[in-house]
Amino acid sequence: MTGTSLTPEERESGAVFAPKFDAAGLLTAVVVDDASGEVLVVAHMNAEALEATLSTGKVHFWSRSRGALWMKGETSGNVLTVVQTLVDCDQDALVIRAVPSGPTCHTGARSCFYRQIDVRDGKPVLVRL
Amino acid sequence: MTGTSLTPEERESGAVFAPKFDAAGLLTAVVVDDASGEVLVVAHMNAEALEATLSTGKVHFWSRSRGALWMKGETSGNVLTVVQTLVDCDQDALVIRAVPSGPTCHTGARSCFYRQIDVRDGKPVLVRL
Repeated sequence: MTGTSLTPEERESGAVFAPKFDAAGLLTAVVVDDASGEVLVVAHMNAEALEATLSTGKVHFWSRSRGALWMKGETSGNVLTVVQTLVDCDQDALVIRAVPSGPTCHTGARSCFYRQIDVRDGKPVLVRL
Repeated sequence: MTGTSLTPEERESGAVFAPKFDAAGLLTAVVVDDASGEVLVVAHMNAEALEATLSTGKVHFWSRSRGALWMKGETSGNVLTVVQTLVDCDQDALVIRAVPSGPTCHTGARSCFYRQIDVRDGKPVLVRL
């Protein structure tokens, strides 16, 4: 599925999907709750995780820390079922609208983004939403 | 602003902001339209871009291709004004809710994510939204 011979215009305007993996062979994938639009998780996909996601309709990632392919929810049961997959202009990032079958974050939170950064006295601190 | 001495629990549950930059010194930043919730752009921040974003309230990125700090919109005028910044469980990704002052994508599209991936006869093709 890789294709590095596209012109910049073909890459940005064309119908050819030619994912641009980074030096580590990864794309960034942002998973959004299809119902609420909330960002649930940001993770990475290598070619194998991308192929598995597209072919099964369940979100798969590449774990950088474990060096392994994993289906999100394979142990917790909290899978992410793909509704729509979008790609950006230079084809190095995906936005996946999905239906979560439970909390997405391993902490039990609905989303991994459960804290905001506030700046107090010029210093950033984290505040739970 | 880096802090690698946190325990996993402090990192996930605490109030200390200790961004976890990758091997290239980067965090992933997802910018969302504060009004619509739409994902506008996914890009990267090094420590300098993060500091500039937090201190000015305008989204700054690190360009991997140009090797330079840039304020989004510095040439086009289409800046992104920060409303809220969220951090994820392991502190290696940000979601920034922002007000865009014009199209975010350099192609002139409102969002960089203007194409979806359809699978036809087992092959992915891109379709403009």
